[in-house]
Amino acid sequence: MDKTSLGGFAGTWALVALAIVLGGVGFGAYIDIPSVVIVFGGAITVTMGQYEGQDLKQFGKACGVAFKPVPVESTPELIEKIIFYATEIKKNGVMAVEQKIMEEKNPFFKESFALLVDNTKPDVIEALMETKLEHMENRHKTMIAMFGSIGGTAGAMGMIGTLVGLVAMLANLSDPSAVGPAMAVALLTTLYGALVGTGFAGIMETKLGNKNSLELTAHQITIQGAVMIASGESIGNIKMKLNAILPVVAG
Amino acid sequence: MDKTSLGGFAGTWALVALAIVLGGVGFGAYIDIPSVVIVFGGAITVTMGQYEGQDLKQFGKACGVAFKPVPVESTPELIEKIIFYATEIKKNGVMAVEQKIMEEKNPFFKESFALLVDNTKPDVIEALMETKLEHMENRHKTMIAMFGSIGGTAGAMGMIGTLVGLVAMLANLSDPSAVGPAMAVALLTTLYGALVGTGFAGIMETKLGNKNSLELTAHQITIQGAVMIASGESIGNIKMKLNAILPVVAG
Amino acid sequence: MDKTSLGGFAGTWALVALAIVLGGVGFGAYIDIPSVVIVFGGAITVTMGQYEGQDLKQFGKACGVAFKPVPVESTPELIEKIIFYATEIKKNGVMAVEQKIMEEKNPFFKESFALLVDNTKPDVIEALMETKLEHMENRHKTMIAMFGSIGGTAGAMGMIGTLVGLVAMLANLSDPSAVGPAMAVALLTTLYGALVGTGFAGIMETKLGNKNSLELTAHQITIQGAVMIASGESIGNIKMKLNAILPVVAG
Amino acid sequence: MDKTSLGGFAGTWALVALAIVLGGVGFGAYIDIPSVVIVFGGAITVTMGQYEGQDLKQFGKACGVAFKPVPVESTPELIEKIIFYATEIKKNGVMAVEQKIMEEKNPFFKESFALLVDNTKPDVIEALMETKLEHMENRHKTMIAMFGSIGGTAGAMGMIGTLVGLVAMLANLSDPSAVGPAMAVALLTTLYGALVGTGFAGIMETKLGNKNSLELTAHQITIQGAVMIASGESIGNIKMKLNAILPVVAG
Amino acid sequence: MDKTSLGGFAGTWALVALAIVLGGVGFGAYIDIPSVVIVFGGAITVTMGQYEGQDLKQFGKACGVAFKPVPVESTPELIEKIIFYATEIKKNGVMAVEQKIMEEKNPFFKESFALLVDNTKPDVIEALMETKLEHMENRHKTMIAMFGSIGGTAGAMGMIGTLVGLVAMLANLSDPSAVGPAMAVALLTTLYGALVGTGFAGIMETKLGNKNSLELTAHQITIQGAVMIASGESIGNIKMKLNAILPVVAG
Repeated sequence: MDKTSLGGFAGTWALVALAIVLGGVGFGAYIDIPSVVIVFGGAITVTMGQYEGQDLKQFGKACGVAFKPVPVESTPELIEKIIFYATEIKKNGVMAVEQKIMEEKNPFFKESFALLVDNTKPDVIEALMETKLEHMENRHKTMIAMFGSIGGTAGAMGMIGTLVGLVAMLANLSDPSAVGPAMAVALLTTLYGALVGTGFAGIMETKLGNKNSLELTAHQITIQGAVMIASGESIGNIKMKLNAILPVVAG
Repeated sequence: MDKTSLGGFAGTWALVALAIVLGGVGFGAYIDIPSVVIVFGGAITVTMGQYEGQDLKQFGKACGVAFKPVPVESTPELIEKIIFYATEIKKNGVMAVEQKIMEEKNPFFKESFALLVDNTKPDVIEALMETKLEHMENRHKTMIAMFGSIGGTAGAMGMIGTLVGLVAMLANLSDPSAVGPAMAVALLTTLYGALVGTGFAGIMETKLGNKNSLELTAHQITIQGAVMIASGESIGNIKMKLNAILPVVAG
Repeated sequence: MDKTSLGGFAGTWALVALAIVLGGVGFGAYIDIPSVVIVFGGAITVTMGQYEGQDLKQFGKACGVAFKPVPVESTPELIEKIIFYATEIKKNGVMAVEQKIMEEKNPFFKESFALLVDNTKPDVIEALMETKLEHMENRHKTMIAMFGSIGGTAGAMGMIGTLVGLVAMLANLSDPSAVGPAMAVALLTTLYGALVGTGFAGIMETKLGNKNSLELTAHQITIQGAVMIASGESIGNIKMKLNAILPVVAG
Repeated sequence: MDKTSLGGFAGTWALVALAIVLGGVGFGAYIDIPSVVIVFGGAITVTMGQYEGQDLKQFGKACGVAFKPVPVESTPELIEKIIFYATEIKKNGVMAVEQKIMEEKNPFFKESFALLVDNTKPDVIEALMETKLEHMENRHKTMIAMFGSIGGTAGAMGMIGTLVGLVAMLANLSDPSAVGPAMAVALLTTLYGALVGTGFAGIMETKLGNKNSLELTAHQITIQGAVMIASGESIGNIKMKLNAILPVVAG
Repeated sequence: MDKTSLGGFAGTWALVALAIVLGGVGFGAYIDIPSVVIVFGGAITVTMGQYEGQDLKQFGKACGVAFKPVPVESTPELIEKIIFYATEIKKNGVMAVEQKIMEEKNPFFKESFALLVDNTKPDVIEALMETKLEHMENRHKTMIAMFGSIGGTAGAMGMIGTLVGLVAMLANLSDPSAVGPAMAVALLTTLYGALVGTGFAGIMETKLGNKNSLELTAHQITIQGAVMIASGESIGNIKMKLNAILPVVAG
């Protein structure tokens, strides 16, 4: 579980709840079923209209990904691990690490290094794993864009709901005492739209984008490591090149 | 028929209708012919002014494309099909599959593999089909941009309509009881503009963009497959390279 | 005359006029000379401040271009014409078509093929005509950006005008009956700004962008054709390569 | 002095002054020292916080550049001049033009052609002058971005000032007759922000961007010319290549 | 300490304080604890939800970086220093400067030139230091984007807070005298959001972006210098190439 992420998400909604409590008119004034239907329903139907069935099916999984740690090692750990494998393979051959590679948790790492065990040529490892990375990134970008699109749609549906409410109110001004509450209800859809945009879609979009960047960097280092090992580069060279990825001291 | 897409589209408008019904003042308050004319008419005339006749003629076809499944196989099916043809051609020669290729439904696949049957050289297949893909994408992008432009124009015409209505109302404030209804009517153009932007143009633009991406990926895999077969690569190599496109397990 | 374009432009303004008539307070309420001065004048003076004299002088010409058909053939016609010249030159030599080339209406085509008549080497034709195309596109992009900038400026001047009007109204609230008309006048600059942005600059910017894309595609095909002819490629090859530009059947 | 530019700038502010005069409440209603302080002061302090000292020192110079003609020849003049030097050098050698080159006004041209006089190799001329051009463009882009940033900041400070004013007014509604004037003053910061954004920063940003493009094109042509002369290309070739930069007749 | 930067930052907040004082209703009217909680708290929780723990930990350090001078020399100083080392190494060998390089303050410069001392080949120096630069820039860009995201989130939370306040006020219109103050409080969150966006996040984002550009340019020059020295280029060549980076006189 990615606790910072989940904490940030839950904390955002807790703060909004707190703001409502402090507002002093109670939660009841902020709940209006028709408004819920138009904003949440509209965000769902418009997204259904915009995306292919195969992408929509990934929605739940993508939400899960946002709150789970990415299945990659931190850069220093990853570099250390690659150097460990490079040293082992140099000393005892690829068969000596086969078992250990098959037990790796990071699937991209496992697949890249399994190619090493199969004595795949370095340029083939690079081509295959780069292809995999490129298609993986395209799938991720479609999902990231979907959350961005949901945020925009929720805002637009919120505005549409407010306009529908305002027209209803203005068309029927005979009872002045009803203007305030009617206006309050009309504004609820705008509020809901902003909440979905900021507290859900905005968090998801940026979070998945950041996780994608993390994965991309880790996978590129993994490919570079596997290619260098397959090319038979010296341990010294491999160490020097991988360590160049780390920040300079005080930089 | 792309049911998710059509369902999302129809559902969006049903929700707006529901919101109006729940608003309690009836549909009549939301219909104003001059407002319809300025927003829908204006979106049409501005688009006519912006686009070339040959692009405008594609409008109806593009709307249809958004609600039809893309004429391409899913990535795993496509890869399986290419491997099938590669194996058949390796075993029995290109003439053995000619009839089957001529019956393919996906026109880009059919054209790419027809070049194989004609013994076209791999680099010529690549050059010809990449050219076709590039020009196809340019045509798609013009249409996608047109829907984006329609959405923006509808919003702008909505604002213009509201300003025209507000000026009329303000210039004639003598009857206070008319202010509410006049204001309601003035807001209708903004509402119409937002509805066209979100519930029509926004769905179309994103949908066509997603379908274009799907097609692009499929066509690039098709070209890669045809080129590998024409180059006489081994079935093992072709399988390995195409399977690299699929996600890693648990990735 | 590009009738769709002109019709769209004229239709947009006719619809706005219609909306005003249907608003019921007459055209007089929508005309205010100081508002005209600040929005139209401001859009002109800001643009004068932003652009170089040599670009400003192209303004009228660019407006004309938007309403005239682009001086290029449709893609199928252009391909047919190139194949015609390729065949003629193959059969009878370049001198046989010199007269016909000199009579071509499309100046870019004429200049490209005139180089053929002069026996210019294919790589020189490509370099010269690509240079010409690149500088032509830069000039077009400056003009397209100018219309975008005019639209943004008109909107900003409209907002400035409304703020000037609101301050005047608020500073002088003693006569309540004057508030409505004063507010109406203040809103006119926003309306003018939106009209210039949508009904003039927005149409021009998109139209010129589309015409530029059309020309660019046609000129690139022209260069490709001239280069293939100059390289002495076979008619079969030229046909195959040019036809790859056209859409696949049902694609 | 770039008269169009200065005229546009001065004209914009004259039009705003005219709009105020026509508003009928006098200049006094539009001047509020605290509003001036927050918008202009805020734009200055935020920019100080955003930019490095060395960039801030260029501010005055950049303002000057916007109103001076760029120190480059028009494209046809520049081409003519390059052809003149190419011909002279071909006939009489580089020493014959040394004096004339040293008297050139355009410093980039002078430096490029001085390298010719020193018999610098063509690829060295290209590398050195391209480096200089690249770093020059980076410096220009920083300044252009600074004006864009000033415009955005002025708008934001205007909104902040208006909110500060609205809160003051609303917190103290006891005297209804003060509402109008207080609101008018609150709106002044928004007006000032929009004026700075449109009438100053927006003009400067676009103007400097256009001047940068002009210079870039001229300098690239200059480098191309110097390289061709240094490579000993024939006058015919140089003429043909440079003339390709000019528009086609009727294109 | 980067005094301009800190001065700009402090000055911005001083101006806002001044505007409040001049508003005449006292600081009390501008402080509302629930509003502080929703805007500042919300900006924190949303950012926690959006970014990885390892990036959030860099927040304090990034704030510090914005107010400290970048640890790189100005371009002329850097060029002079590289030429100094080039000359020393040419005359007395790399060992003669080893001590001095180890005492360099700029860590990127120190690391690049330490490779020279180790007799690293020029292409290896380039590859290693370019890798380091690329990963450094990626880390910087994540932090720069985080500040941009904080600004946007603060604005959105400000709007959400205002909507929550407006709904509370409208739902409870029975006491007209409470409307003004309630509205004032509701606007405070929008004001806070704008202040965080402009006076904190906006300054930080642009400042860090400018510092990153400065560093990038300096580090690229450092790499170029180290590579030229390692390649054994003549002092004359090194000087000529580095000086090409400086502006032309009067350019």
